[in-house]
Amino acid sequence: MIGQEIIGRFAALLGPKGVITDPEDIAPWLTDWRGRFHGAAAAILQPSSTQEVAAIVSLAAELRVPLVPQGGNTSMVGGATPPQDGSALILSLRRMNRIRSLSPDDNLAICEAGVILSILHDAAEEVGRRFPLSLGAKGSATIGGLISTNAGGTQVLRHGTMRALVEGLEAVLPDGSILNGLEALKKDNRGYDLKQLLVGAEGTLGIITAAALRLVPAIAARAVAWVGVASPADALALLRLTEARLGDSVEGFEIIADDGLGHVLSHIPGTRCPIETRTPWHVLIEVDHADLSPPSPEERLETALADALTQGIAIDAAIAVNEAQAATFWRLRESLSEAERAQGPALQFDISVPVARMPAFMIDTAAAAERTFPGTTASSFGHLGDGNVHFHVRAPKGSTDGPAWIAADGKAINAFVHDAVAAAGGSISAEHGIGQMKRAELGRLASPARLHALRAIKAAFDPLGLMNPDKLIPRPEEG
Amino acid sequence: MIGQEIIGRFAALLGPKGVITDPEDIAPWLTDWRGRFHGAAAAILQPSSTQEVAAIVSLAAELRVPLVPQGGNTSMVGGATPPQDGSALILSLRRMNRIRSLSPDDNLAICEAGVILSILHDAAEEVGRRFPLSLGAKGSATIGGLISTNAGGTQVLRHGTMRALVEGLEAVLPDGSILNGLEALKKDNRGYDLKQLLVGAEGTLGIITAAALRLVPAIAARAVAWVGVASPADALALLRLTEARLGDSVEGFEIIADDGLGHVLSHIPGTRCPIETRTPWHVLIEVDHADLSPPSPEERLETALADALTQGIAIDAAIAVNEAQAATFWRLRESLSEAERAQGPALQFDISVPVARMPAFMIDTAAAAERTFPGTTASSFGHLGDGNVHFHVRAPKGSTDGPAWIAADGKAINAFVHDAVAAAGGSISAEHGIGQMKRAELGRLASPARLHALRAIKAAFDPLGLMNPDKLIPRPEEG
Repeated sequence: MIGQEIIGRFAALLGPKGVITDPEDIAPWLTDWRGRFHGAAAAILQPSSTQEVAAIVSLAAELRVPLVPQGGNTSMVGGATPPQDGSALILSLRRMNRIRSLSPDDNLAICEAGVILSILHDAAEEVGRRFPLSLGAKGSATIGGLISTNAGGTQVLRHGTMRALVEGLEAVLPDGSILNGLEALKKDNRGYDLKQLLVGAEGTLGIITAAALRLVPAIAARAVAWVGVASPADALALLRLTEARLGDSVEGFEIIADDGLGHVLSHIPGTRCPIETRTPWHVLIEVDHADLSPPSPEERLETALADALTQGIAIDAAIAVNEAQAATFWRLRESLSEAERAQGPALQFDISVPVARMPAFMIDTAAAAERTFPGTTASSFGHLGDGNVHFHVRAPKGSTDGPAWIAADGKAINAFVHDAVAAAGGSISAEHGIGQMKRAELGRLASPARLHALRAIKAAFDPLGLMNPDKLIPRPEEG
Repeated sequence: MIGQEIIGRFAALLGPKGVITDPEDIAPWLTDWRGRFHGAAAAILQPSSTQEVAAIVSLAAELRVPLVPQGGNTSMVGGATPPQDGSALILSLRRMNRIRSLSPDDNLAICEAGVILSILHDAAEEVGRRFPLSLGAKGSATIGGLISTNAGGTQVLRHGTMRALVEGLEAVLPDGSILNGLEALKKDNRGYDLKQLLVGAEGTLGIITAAALRLVPAIAARAVAWVGVASPADALALLRLTEARLGDSVEGFEIIADDGLGHVLSHIPGTRCPIETRTPWHVLIEVDHADLSPPSPEERLETALADALTQGIAIDAAIAVNEAQAATFWRLRESLSEAERAQGPALQFDISVPVARMPAFMIDTAAAAERTFPGTTASSFGHLGDGNVHFHVRAPKGSTDGPAWIAADGKAINAFVHDAVAAAGGSISAEHGIGQMKRAELGRLASPARLHALRAIKAAFDPLGLMNPDKLIPRPEEG
């Protein structure tokens, strides 16, 4: 555990508000969002400016103190949890929560790292714009964390992940120097794209302190449909049809297995299936327009769905008649994780494969998992249009002791699903990152060329190994 | 000069077709596109496969032979010209010119590095799709070079630079290992984005051998307008108005100073101004739709321009009545460089600043340059929507000896314009890259944090310094 003398050095930099040492105040930040990783830290450092972050990082380099950057602490892979031995300090960006500027003309918001996503949503809305990335943790997740993990969500199909929305970045590099890159230049070919290197680096190459983020027009009209289909292959055909007809205006395209929907209808009060026919698979489509000029998204979606029904791609379909009904459609999708938890223990995988291979992957891998691990049931749901689903393997019926089941079979199931992903040319982390949880699996599955490059970049930026230690980069013994 | 023994080792790897040693055959590839840089090389290596590239790079590492990768040799900054002392070999990717696959369903083309841009354009068109990046050198420029320089062009406003169009990459790293990343995953958070690091790296971190590129729908209908405006500020107001009304469908938005148009009308036969009023500035707008559903791009553009005229943002406007007329509008824009050359010697700058600052930059920097360098005239034209213009400072009237003028005043004018760009928070290289030409200026103007990071990445990937030596990374004495 880091001692008082060292903490005193940081307190001298930051003043009394800048350092938290009361164990009760620190405790909530030592465990990850899902409660699976637990760490220790003698203090949380809370800078209020980029200059203070630079001073912290410089002093940490001088004293050889590892730093674990933290925003809303909503990592799904233990990416913001400090090491268990108390050898690191937490560097919280939560006090750096100013929206420095908001320009609707330029479609730009300059936000400090600690701005909470839902606060940015509201601020953009007030000036007639929208920040188009959204996810379940929006009330806690911060801009810095969302950038450091290249967060995704349900709006990626049209607007991309965080990587596509970051137009400029300010960061403190591991030597304490400040990288000023907040000018949002649409074209800039002055060498390697340092901005894109820091996006998704999970705090291992430096500390993001602020970003220039792209805003998009507010939604003027939207249409939301629920469509019953026979298979993921038909869902993909429906995606192609809607993309061809509606182009960029397709903002959401989510696939849901009927068993998943069944769990929602069983466990979440007040829910019902939007279509009369119960089909093996379901698709939720959202089409958005930024203006009110005809034809409306509803008319366009209706025409496309009529063709899909005629062609036999779709079995049944309903378009929400108003915003309230649209919200009930989305609620079914958003309740899936909660319903799955209520259903019983499950292992959850955040994976991606090329979009064209996704239908076969969903069917074949689920069947193979059920064969290989008798008694389990497997299915998936999620962002078909992004080639990214959440693939779940549920414990055999009657299992109530989730931890015991995971201890017994978790490792084998994990390897089984990841091997299937690798065989399909996919990624074992589509949107959650690597953190601590997937580090060893990355080491096992990544090519030597990729692993070598990751380690070379890490060593070049952070030769002392002080930036978010033991995250993302596989340990030497891990591959 | 590299000797026969070493060349023999490469010939043993590649066979007779794989190595060019005849000085006459080598000569055209020793001088850059603009004829400003001249190098020497004893041989051109011409691999026909990724495996051969890997073998070349491994042998080069063993023998400590620097390699200069080359595609179409159309660099504007001497980025593909070998060193003058003959210490390097040219690695041509031109024989690797297969389009490995073309999938309209997935909107993907997998191309080898040596595929020429116009060949990809044609291939995409044949399957009802479009590769949306285009530029003057499309008949020579190769995919590998376009990616390595993060090329731009006139279609960037809607579809982005090459960086936004590369969905997957295959490359040989400086240790000879192959990075396999051709699976086009829309979401992949397995650590640092190596793909984005190689895009725009100008061959200094490895050799790009193939890429998965995004295709977009073919254009079903387009409208092209010529608009006269009073100032760059009004042009920007017009951009905002058209973006608000027409959204993503605005594919081109080019600004042209009236003096530049005048040079075109004087020097290029058969050209005329599309509008009756001669205004101080001109704007060329293209709006594209992927389908034929009403309202047509012409109707939408007409409504928007009517409002712009009413609001006084535009002075006069003409929409092309057919494709032939649209082509004559674009010809004016595309003839600007040729007309400027005919007009007399000039220094040309490829620069960017934040879009909102561009109007003031264009006016103020031109006036300041003319004041500081008496007799010169300065003006700019280009991609206003991208915050990227080509800024020209012309020699005093009557100067015919361009080289003498450049030798006398070039360095000072160069520094003057680049300082103005830096003061406006811009980039001294918007789309052409750094190469040899801008290396020293990058060293002079980049922040210590950025320079340190560029050098650290270069050293981490290429510790022997064999990949495109003396390009992009400023020499120690340069900053």
